[in-house]
Amino acid sequence: MFDVALLGTGGMMPLPNRFLTAMICRTKGYTLLVDCGEGTQITLKKLGWGFKNIDAIAITHFHADHISGLPGMLLAIGNSERTEPLQMFGPPGLANVVEKLRVIVPELPFDIFFTEWSKEVTSAELLPDLQLKCLPLNHGMPCFAYSVTLHRQGRFDVERAKAANVPMKIWSALQKQEKVVYNEIIYTSNMVLGEPRKGLMIGYCTDSRPTADLPSFMQNADLLICEGLYGDPDKLEKTIARKHMTFNEAAKIAKTANAQELWLTHFSPAMHNPQDYHKETQKIFPNTIIGKDRMTKTLTFEED
Amino acid sequence: MFDVALLGTGGMMPLPNRFLTAMICRTKGYTLLVDCGEGTQITLKKLGWGFKNIDAIAITHFHADHISGLPGMLLAIGNSERTEPLQMFGPPGLANVVEKLRVIVPELPFDIFFTEWSKEVTSAELLPDLQLKCLPLNHGMPCFAYSVTLHRQGRFDVERAKAANVPMKIWSALQKQEKVVYNEIIYTSNMVLGEPRKGLMIGYCTDSRPTADLPSFMQNADLLICEGLYGDPDKLEKTIARKHMTFNEAAKIAKTANAQELWLTHFSPAMHNPQDYHKETQKIFPNTIIGKDRMTKTLTFEED
Repeated sequence: MFDVALLGTGGMMPLPNRFLTAMICRTKGYTLLVDCGEGTQITLKKLGWGFKNIDAIAITHFHADHISGLPGMLLAIGNSERTEPLQMFGPPGLANVVEKLRVIVPELPFDIFFTEWSKEVTSAELLPDLQLKCLPLNHGMPCFAYSVTLHRQGRFDVERAKAANVPMKIWSALQKQEKVVYNEIIYTSNMVLGEPRKGLMIGYCTDSRPTADLPSFMQNADLLICEGLYGDPDKLEKTIARKHMTFNEAAKIAKTANAQELWLTHFSPAMHNPQDYHKETQKIFPNTIIGKDRMTKTLTFEED
Repeated sequence: MFDVALLGTGGMMPLPNRFLTAMICRTKGYTLLVDCGEGTQITLKKLGWGFKNIDAIAITHFHADHISGLPGMLLAIGNSERTEPLQMFGPPGLANVVEKLRVIVPELPFDIFFTEWSKEVTSAELLPDLQLKCLPLNHGMPCFAYSVTLHRQGRFDVERAKAANVPMKIWSALQKQEKVVYNEIIYTSNMVLGEPRKGLMIGYCTDSRPTADLPSFMQNADLLICEGLYGDPDKLEKTIARKHMTFNEAAKIAKTANAQELWLTHFSPAMHNPQDYHKETQKIFPNTIIGKDRMTKTLTFEED
């Protein structure tokens, strides 16, 4: 089970009925927030998933609409009495930006550990089977797309376990952990498990022009959350100038990536009814959904 | 005419139906915003008074709930295409705090001029007849109450004008401006005007314990906007510990100050129904009003 919620669907500025784009997902007791514009704590409060359990915050880039809510969010997490460290991921300079923003939140009851993406550091293990990966985008300032993958191990394979002479006593333990030492012999889980099964992947992409490697980065995403600044194809030129993408461009990425489902978000404040462009976009990628604030979905592993 | 709106009524954190405490007032084309927590731009958008015309922002103190919305607000003002300079007023260190917060809003189409309060600098002339004054509070960090006063000149006095030999030709000009040079003689408005009449004053006080000089600072306020963290008198100890005040304490200040009207605000997120304590508070100060987000009032000069 992998719960995901789109906290807001707005770009540039929060509107009374449209919070700024952000995503939260949780699985196995681990919660990741991606982006945190002004008001994200309000929409999260409405959603009711809580603050204390937020383990990590990943930031796509340092435009205000993606990070301006961070001081308030850190305070809300602090007020929830979290004391466990918080992980933060983001572009180079993240620690410096957060340090400056914390001029108004100098004291917190938890530590923050920073990971700044670089050529060498492009992924992080959130849990042994939960992985966060980033991909540089094209937005006129360093900006990253994210994928969050919940891996799924292979099925228990009795024949394989027997063939590897794994004592039955440790079968159950090996199914849950990678390595067991028993009678001074090291046994590993691959001795009892079949090939890894299909996991679950959520992709998140905002803000950017379409890039050549986005579709492969988002390949087979169970859910792709992608920006669409404008639905109107006539606004393409304006969209290009602002280094964003249109609904149609996002739909093309979802199609090429062979995604299961596309949620559009990060709408221009000037676009009052994103639904107006729904049908046209579905011609490119039928399973396109126009994002709404606090829409949620629970992804589940496919049936065996 | 002096328009005032209470943009929010919450303390500590913005809630889905209660924005953080802030006040906006406007007169004679001049608009002043006091405090700017997370979400202030959203509630201001709901109110519909616009962003471009904000001439000044005064901050009471640097707790996040009073300033965390500043980066987004500056961006919103910038997006409204304001190019005229913005005035900012606040505690010592204001320019440094704003500079740090602007790490995510480095480019703006207008300049910001800072005034940091000190023993020597305790007031500012927003317009020739519009004055902002501050008073240090008691909140565990430097924090200031504000009064905004719209002065009202005396009535035109024909007898006085004649007695001072002011040429009739410049009577009208002298009524509008302080000084007129005519035939190489300097004439001043006090030659044609009677004693200044009663103006209009709005007081704003949050966050603080009651202090000895608050009532005199707020003397005869037409409207006093004052914090009341809790309505329940049993919460006094908790309120004192947090360096705030209760409804009753605010009402006592309004009474001693001989204010016309009191709006309570900055409610604890834990207090769901501030109205529950309304009647009790009115026993101390009858014209107490429990603040609501975006409540407005137009103050007018008294009839002659």
